[in-house]
Formats: sequence, structure tokens, C-alpha cells
Amino acid sequence: MAKRERLMATIKEVAALAGVTPTTVTNVLRNRGRVGDATRERVLEVVAAQGYRPNLNARALVERRAPTLALMLGCITNPFYPEFTLQANNAARRHGRFLLVCNTDYEPDGGTRFLADVAGSLSDGILVANNGELRIDELKAIQATGTPVVISIWELPDNPPGVPCVAFDSHKAGFIAANHLLELGHRRVGALVGSAKNGIHGGRYQGFRDALRAQKVKHVLADARFCSDSFQSGFDAALDLLSARPDLTALFVSNDLPALGALNAAASLGLNVPDDLSIVSVTNIELASQSRPSLTTVAIPTAEIAEQSVELLLKLIANTPDVAPVIRTTDPVLVKRDSTAPIRKN
Amino acid sequence: MAKRERLMATIKEVAALAGVTPTTVTNVLRNRGRVGDATRERVLEVVAAQGYRPNLNARALVERRAPTLALMLGCITNPFYPEFTLQANNAARRHGRFLLVCNTDYEPDGGTRFLADVAGSLSDGILVANNGELRIDELKAIQATGTPVVISIWELPDNPPGVPCVAFDSHKAGFIAANHLLELGHRRVGALVGSAKNGIHGGRYQGFRDALRAQKVKHVLADARFCSDSFQSGFDAALDLLSARPDLTALFVSNDLPALGALNAAASLGLNVPDDLSIVSVTNIELASQSRPSLTTVAIPTAEIAEQSVELLLKLIANTPDVAPVIRTTDPVLVKRDSTAPIRKN
Repeated sequence: MAKRERLMATIKEVAALAGVTPTTVTNVLRNRGRVGDATRERVLEVVAAQGYRPNLNARALVERRAPTLALMLGCITNPFYPEFTLQANNAARRHGRFLLVCNTDYEPDGGTRFLADVAGSLSDGILVANNGELRIDELKAIQATGTPVVISIWELPDNPPGVPCVAFDSHKAGFIAANHLLELGHRRVGALVGSAKNGIHGGRYQGFRDALRAQKVKHVLADARFCSDSFQSGFDAALDLLSARPDLTALFVSNDLPALGALNAAASLGLNVPDDLSIVSVTNIELASQSRPSLTTVAIPTAEIAEQSVELLLKLIANTPDVAPVIRTTDPVLVKRDSTAPIRKN
Repeated sequence: MAKRERLMATIKEVAALAGVTPTTVTNVLRNRGRVGDATRERVLEVVAAQGYRPNLNARALVERRAPTLALMLGCITNPFYPEFTLQANNAARRHGRFLLVCNTDYEPDGGTRFLADVAGSLSDGILVANNGELRIDELKAIQATGTPVVISIWELPDNPPGVPCVAFDSHKAGFIAANHLLELGHRRVGALVGSAKNGIHGGRYQGFRDALRAQKVKHVLADARFCSDSFQSGFDAALDLLSARPDLTALFVSNDLPALGALNAAASLGLNVPDDLSIVSVTNIELASQSRPSLTTVAIPTAEIAEQSVELLLKLIANTPDVAPVIRTTDPVLVKRDSTAPIRKN
């Protein structure tokens, strides 16, 4: 790439024009040290006239720290992640930090190069919010170089990953969803799981099954479909399951996006939700309140997860002693909307 | 904030351990210069053993350029922007660049401080994709310091902003949408505009009105509602307009998100879309194909806009001569789906 002349003044030029030392310029711009009012005004005038802006790279080198936090996202077009990003962004800003979003969709190495290039230089801490496979070893390698890493969303009861994380009880989310259907009288309940059987939604599915088992309601694998966390995949899986098992009166879906696909599939089959079929899911993205019918779902504490992961990361950056490696959030809660109803008696 | 010890080796330590100069380490890591195979292997072994990663801040200072492109986003939870981000990200990666997403939602200064801190240090070029008010003067001030700025999405026929931009014909988008309704026989057509009357969607609305005028179909301001670019706002505005004007047989909506709200409002009023009411909009986000009924919309060339704005920015960074300040995309095209139908004869 061609070299380009910078038009921006250096701090030395600003200092010379204002008749002060570069340190004084820095003190004025960072509001520290003792600088007289007249000097301050003169410096600010030169700064404005020259269009000078402090170079963050230089500052980061001098202070041995970078000015931002990075958020690694695996799937920016899944609407959960923009909502999470907004919350994490706001938390970072409340702590005076900027959040850089690094979108790793379709990176052939799952974002490893992005991590390696960003860690410790552009950012001094990294939040990871992937919905796919996490390369825990890679995250540990970044940690080992001195850049803290926090996994933003971990699903208990999966074993803690050995990297600091914020975790919510995904088993309980599935348990609550299933109990809601049981309380409405449903006994023939199918499941759509937005991951492989033992994948990221395994805890949610296990919670669902444990609730059914506690009420001695039979659920066999033939009543479940495993798909991916997308509208289309949920649509296809629901079409398949509901065609094979027309006697089902309710569906548990492990995430809102495939549940919205399932709503659409039910309509395609001429099923009225909730009169013919109840659907409950997990997460509570904004779209869950906008679908028709609106979606009953078990809300995970997205804002709290974002806030806690930013705070955990900042504690690690500050070398705070005795930081717990797993921060547990409050429990998920049922949000009752229009996609679930009592089973019809006939 | 407490200082934190870096565990990472410096390039000097790596060089000493490998028995070479720092320049040789750099040459190995950047695949340039002449380095013998044995030396290369020795350097890479030390780099791996020490967990050394080149410091981008230092590199940026030395080369007087930053390694990334920045994308300023004003509204990350509006689903158009994640879709645009994914395309821009892919374009940047095809050109060997990383894209940092800077989310300026709720920044009290509209992202000005973010711009000032990111421009020219973390990134050597800036894409701006705000759906709100753009501070053109602020963008020009950043440009003046030597950091190129590109406005990613400009709506013709608005006058070019004086900052390089990629523009599509928003007037034509509105014109095509209106003509589709006219060809289906609709003559009593309302409009929902997702901005102020002369705001960002003014060109789309003007195109709509010009198409009606060309066919001598009357449209008065009382048949329009101005709302914001959200589902809820479209829902509220549609409810208001359709209640006031139950004789309307079709709606033009200037963006998909309020159009999805209008679909829901029509259902709330017991109107069947498209039998009782046709709805057409503009953009073609993914949700437009997932609603029920799916949404007829005039697709703007999102991927092309993303690709062109990355390429324009890279040209400006490279000081390419004679770069056109306004890149015009191909025209929008109608995507016919299930929300529009011929007017019923009775």
C-alpha cells in the first residue's frame, strides 16, 4: 500500500507552537497535573487550530496498555448478539471504555488470527461471545500472554471452561419451560434443540427432560429434532417433527430464533398456535415480543450477563485479587405471552 | 487503573534468544526479506516458546498506519446493520483487513468522541453507517487530519454530502414500490415513512409520490404517517392510519422494519394481508422473507454497498488519484413475495 502523508500535527509541534513542553500538552488534554489557565487556553487553541488528536497507539505503548475492550462475536446476524453487544457496549461506556466489536463470522480459523492481532495491542481485554465452537486452548494461550479473556456466556451445568466466564443456569431455563407446558396440561410434548444433542443447548434440553421425568411424562428421542440456531433450521425441523408426530400438543424449542421458525412452520401446516399447538422457548430476544402470536419464552438475563462480563474483564485487567473464575447470574424467568395455552380438552 | 505486568516477551528478547537481530525477527514474522530456512525455524521456535506476538501499536507507529478499518454504526439492533456489517466485514477480509465495529448507540455526542479516539490510531480509515443524523462537519474534520472517511450509505437524490460516499437511488426504490401497487390496481394507497418528512427516507417517499402522480393517482399528506425506523413505530403508525382510513387498499412503507410492524397492526385490526390490504416496502432484510405473510419489498443492493464502500475507503487510504467522491450502485429491484396482491374487485 502506498505511504500517505499525515496532515496531523505531532505533540512536539503543538508544544512548540504553544511555547510549552509536550508533557504540558499531555497534561492539558488529560486534565491532570498543574497547568495555569492562560497556558491551558493557549494549548487548547493550538490543538484546535492544528487539528491535533492524541495518538492512542503512542499512548498505549507508553502506558503499556491499550485503550479499548474487544468483543469477539461469532454470529452478528443472529439477533441475540446485536442485543448483547448493545448491552456490553453500554456497560463498557459506563466504565469509560470503548468496545470494539470483532466479527468472526466465516473466519476460516474461527477468529484465531483476529484474536492474536487484537489481543494486547488494540485492546487490553477480550470478551468472547461465540455461539459456535470455542477454542478454549486458544483463549488460554492469549491469556498466557497477559491479556485477560472472559467468556461472556457460559451455559451451566456444563463444566466451567478454565477461562473466566459469566454463566447462567441453562438447565433451569429448560426446566422452567417444560414445567410451564406441564402446568398447562400438555403431556405429548416435542422438542427442537438448536444445537447437536450434546452441543451448546444440551443443558437446556436436559432441563426440559428432567422436568418431564419428574412428572413421569414420557419423552423419547423420537420426539426431538436437533437443528441449528436459525429461523430456517427451526422451520425445517418443526415441519419434519410435526408431520411425523401430529399428536403433539406442545413444543419446547431451545432458542427463540428456531422457535420463530417453528411458529411459521405450524402456520404452514394449518395449525393454530396456541389453540392447536403451544410453543415455548428460551432467551427472550426482541423479536419474541413482535411475532404473531408473540412468543412465550424463558428470558435469560442478557443485560446482566453483559454487565457482569464487562466488570469481570475490568477486574482481571486491573489485577484485582481473588476474582471468582465463574460469575453466576440470577436465574432465567418465564415470560408468558400468546404462543402457549392450556391443552384443549377434546 | 493498576499497572499490570506483561508476561509477553519483547522483540529484543526474542531476537537475543534466537541469536538474530530484531529486524530479522520482524522479517520472519512478516514473510519478507531474505532469511535462511534454519534461521527462520529458530526464530519461529523462540516466538512460539515465548508466546511472542508483534505489537500492532508499535507497528502502526513505525509504519505510520493503523492496521484496521473502523465501521461506525448508529443502531446495531436494527437488523439491517448487522447484515450490512457482515458484508462489510467480508469485504474487508477479502482485502486482508480487519473491521472494527464501533457502536455509537446512545453516545451522547453521536459518536464524536469515539470517532476522534479511533480515527487515525486504531484504524486508518472509517466507514460511517448511521441511520440517524450525521455530523458532516465532524466527518470533514476527521478527514482533514488525514484519516479517510466514507459514508457507506447515501440516499440519492439527496445532494452529495461533501464526504466520499456510496449512494443508491432511493427515489427509484420508492418509485418501483409504488408502481408495483399501481400495476396491481390499487388507487387508495397510504404511506408510512420511517423518518421525518424531509428526513433520511424523504427520497423514498418522493419516489412513491412521483409514481402516483405520473398515473394521476391522488395522494395527500393525510394519507401518510411519519414514524421512526422501528417495528413498534411502524405498528403504531399503521394502526393510526388504517383506523383513520379504512378505505385504503394498500400501504407503501419506506423500510422493512416498520413494514413488519404494519403487518402485525393489520392483523390486529382483523385485516388479511394481502386480501384486504397490500403492503410493500424497501430494503429486503432477512426478516422480510421470514414474516407471515412474507414481505414484498424493493431490495437495495446491501452487499454491493458494503463492498463498494470498503473499496472506496481503501482507495482513499492508498491515495489513489482521481477517485470519484460518489460511487453509485446498481438500482434497487422489486422482490415480489406474499404481502401484495391484485386489488379485489368488490
